[in-house]
Amino acid sequence: MANEKKMVEQITSMEEDFAKWYTDVVKKADLIDYSSVKGCMIIRPYGYAIWENIQRLLDARFKKTGVENVYMPMFIPESLLNKEKDHVEGFAPEVAWVTHGGSEPLTERLCVRPTSETLFCEHYANIIKSYRDLPKLYNQWCSVVRWEKTTRPFLRSREFLWQEGHTMHATAEDAEKETLQMLGVYADFFEEDLGIPVLKGRKTDKEKFAGAEATYTVEALMHDGKALQGGTSHNFGDGFAKAFDIKYLDKDNTLKYCHQTSWGVSTRIIGAIIMTHGDDRGLVLPPAIAPVQLVVIPCAQHKPGVIEKATEVYERVSNIARAKIDVSDNSPGWKYAEYEMKGIPLRLEIGPRDIEANQCVLVRRDTLEKKVISLDDIETEIPALLADITKGLYNKAAQNRMNRTYTETELDSFIETAKTKSGYIRAHWCGCEECEIKLKELADVTSRCMPFGEQGEQGKCIVCGKPTDKLVYWGKAY
Amino acid sequence: MANEKKMVEQITSMEEDFAKWYTDVVKKADLIDYSSVKGCMIIRPYGYAIWENIQRLLDARFKKTGVENVYMPMFIPESLLNKEKDHVEGFAPEVAWVTHGGSEPLTERLCVRPTSETLFCEHYANIIKSYRDLPKLYNQWCSVVRWEKTTRPFLRSREFLWQEGHTMHATAEDAEKETLQMLGVYADFFEEDLGIPVLKGRKTDKEKFAGAEATYTVEALMHDGKALQGGTSHNFGDGFAKAFDIKYLDKDNTLKYCHQTSWGVSTRIIGAIIMTHGDDRGLVLPPAIAPVQLVVIPCAQHKPGVIEKATEVYERVSNIARAKIDVSDNSPGWKYAEYEMKGIPLRLEIGPRDIEANQCVLVRRDTLEKKVISLDDIETEIPALLADITKGLYNKAAQNRMNRTYTETELDSFIETAKTKSGYIRAHWCGCEECEIKLKELADVTSRCMPFGEQGEQGKCIVCGKPTDKLVYWGKAY
Repeated sequence: MANEKKMVEQITSMEEDFAKWYTDVVKKADLIDYSSVKGCMIIRPYGYAIWENIQRLLDARFKKTGVENVYMPMFIPESLLNKEKDHVEGFAPEVAWVTHGGSEPLTERLCVRPTSETLFCEHYANIIKSYRDLPKLYNQWCSVVRWEKTTRPFLRSREFLWQEGHTMHATAEDAEKETLQMLGVYADFFEEDLGIPVLKGRKTDKEKFAGAEATYTVEALMHDGKALQGGTSHNFGDGFAKAFDIKYLDKDNTLKYCHQTSWGVSTRIIGAIIMTHGDDRGLVLPPAIAPVQLVVIPCAQHKPGVIEKATEVYERVSNIARAKIDVSDNSPGWKYAEYEMKGIPLRLEIGPRDIEANQCVLVRRDTLEKKVISLDDIETEIPALLADITKGLYNKAAQNRMNRTYTETELDSFIETAKTKSGYIRAHWCGCEECEIKLKELADVTSRCMPFGEQGEQGKCIVCGKPTDKLVYWGKAY
Repeated sequence: MANEKKMVEQITSMEEDFAKWYTDVVKKADLIDYSSVKGCMIIRPYGYAIWENIQRLLDARFKKTGVENVYMPMFIPESLLNKEKDHVEGFAPEVAWVTHGGSEPLTERLCVRPTSETLFCEHYANIIKSYRDLPKLYNQWCSVVRWEKTTRPFLRSREFLWQEGHTMHATAEDAEKETLQMLGVYADFFEEDLGIPVLKGRKTDKEKFAGAEATYTVEALMHDGKALQGGTSHNFGDGFAKAFDIKYLDKDNTLKYCHQTSWGVSTRIIGAIIMTHGDDRGLVLPPAIAPVQLVVIPCAQHKPGVIEKATEVYERVSNIARAKIDVSDNSPGWKYAEYEMKGIPLRLEIGPRDIEANQCVLVRRDTLEKKVISLDDIETEIPALLADITKGLYNKAAQNRMNRTYTETELDSFIETAKTKSGYIRAHWCGCEECEIKLKELADVTSRCMPFGEQGEQGKCIVCGKPTDKLVYWGKAY
């Protein structure tokens, strides 16, 4: 128990300092390390295994909709980046420039991709000729670079891992349908696999992607009441297609511009998981992406037959879950604390008295509830508990969001709430950027999302008072 | 048939111009495309799906030996790259340098990783304290950059995808064991999954990796008789450990330097597959990595019931193989040529008469042999044929290697063979770099490999005549 105490004391409590708690967890759970490369992170085996699970699950969801993976060069010539005006204005200030190859200066600078619209467009212009070539549904998994000034592990770093989907369509309707379909894929992944409830909606023009006609977002609320943009899906219309001359010969024998989308999620997701589900004992991982879903810990393992029986149970469990057994010399208390820190969803304890009674103890990481089950029921109880944990995580996070969502109709009260509470503030907005900027100045919040289900009801703009049916969720964000 | 002719005529024959045949195949089989990023390639969906299969199979083989995946930053500060003398001398001439972030010049240049020994070493120095922390068996899948002057798709490009394993061990023996174990993993993968026979052996010091004590290689012989280094595994000894101060406290309570290995394979493997198995109809893919293992082609598909029955067969086949059905309007002849170009291992043809006779026709891509089988036997015949194709590919490649391996004991004859034949030349060598360089000048060959099984027999150095038991395979290489 001394050991257990020691482990738990190593991390700052969430209530005391949420930012420090976060940094403690990513370090103590062995997710990342720092290096001499400023602003970049090393993703350690435990962190990377989470990312591999995220990749596997999302990739399968993408492929089910017909998406194919490709790989584009990591460099973009300056002239290519400059081809779409809004896009280059959005990204040029934060790209890394390669100027030399070996000892030779390059004739044209190359930026390390901050995103790859321009490369995909150049390629699509090359390979799309006819309506028969459409749609093209490409995606790539890669790393991208944005020269950020202040960085935090998973949330904002100069290099991060992500996927970027880039699709081309014959009509504006097809492109809009794809944009929303992929937003739905993200929402389902967050809610079903990660147990993270999200708001699905549109971004205001001020917050949309550089070069997009419309940006949609899945927005999650962290434990501390700050919002996190979980994934975005953009409809580009034919803006890039015109800049890159991407045309197809339609059935009616006329040349038409293609309509385009892009959509992406990144290793930020890991930050969202930590800050949605974590607690003062450390990580709490949703079973779908947990590198280890269940850890078997023998109790009084020096007693004859305990390790053997625990190993037998471990082998059975391995057929139904990603399992691990710890027969090291560390005390059970140390092990409990260690695997709680690592967020392993289920712990299976088994000792001499359990063996005698043909039973074991299952402890849920999310609620710390214990359940004694018969060894005969392992194969049914464990999958059921894992599914229940995901549901429990979802409900707890949804409850937190509900508790932290405030509705305001008067500016003074809005400002007061923004000052004293942390969460979403629902308020009507007239649609003009001026009011949006003013609200940022007065209340230090940004527009997070205009949720699909909550538009169309009449109200007054929280800033200027004009009648409007646009409802915005405002907040502070990671 | 007109279409089929047209397709096949599109590629240059191997005998006429092997280099042009290769370029034709990578383009016509839709593996890659070029972009405005000089020296880099776009890996298209069909090419990338091959790489995904290679990754999946190799990654499983790595993990079985205890390897864990991580992700390191893509940048290396100049001072970090400079820490190991031999290493920086080997790589500095061919790295890309980032000098600016946004509009600001960096205080220290960063190179885009050509390989990541230095980053792994810095991290290992940070996390390894005790003998209990060893071994550390890390790998990463990523892209690396080497500023090559002349490039060819998959074989040599400025950016390529690879995996790089970096491991740390307590003793020299453990490191040597790991180096050879991973070489064995590569050899098994090439031979069992890709049907490519390889020579397993050691590189001469002249050809070893910058900073390594010993480099081992799996070397494959292409259809044209040129060699290709398929994968390498390096034993670094404690050279980097000393440069980076990577020490552990041993059981005897003394501080000791770690011993290190690294090993890697890249998208070059795709080049090796093309040039080992391909023919004048295009790609020939080994089933293990083929994105589609079997394509179902209905014949006389306008006749009633044909598409329905073909679809039924396709659905059955999908349970045992990665399958595809083509019910497009293109003629069967066009489809045959198209999927031969794509190298799909098996074609299943089914028409009205087959349906009547409860049968279908299976055509092997490697031999073009046809086999009529009962529809009742699909589930047994197809997996057996796929396995047989891998074996057939292996045997054919092994035969080619045997036919193209020459043994020489006199310098004049060696030079004559090097001039007139294309393949491996087996010859003894005294072990000194001078003779190696001289042979390069006289016969334009490099040392490829000193195969494990062929050392220890006495002979005379092919250049200086000194007695030696070192046997080298010499040749021209990609």
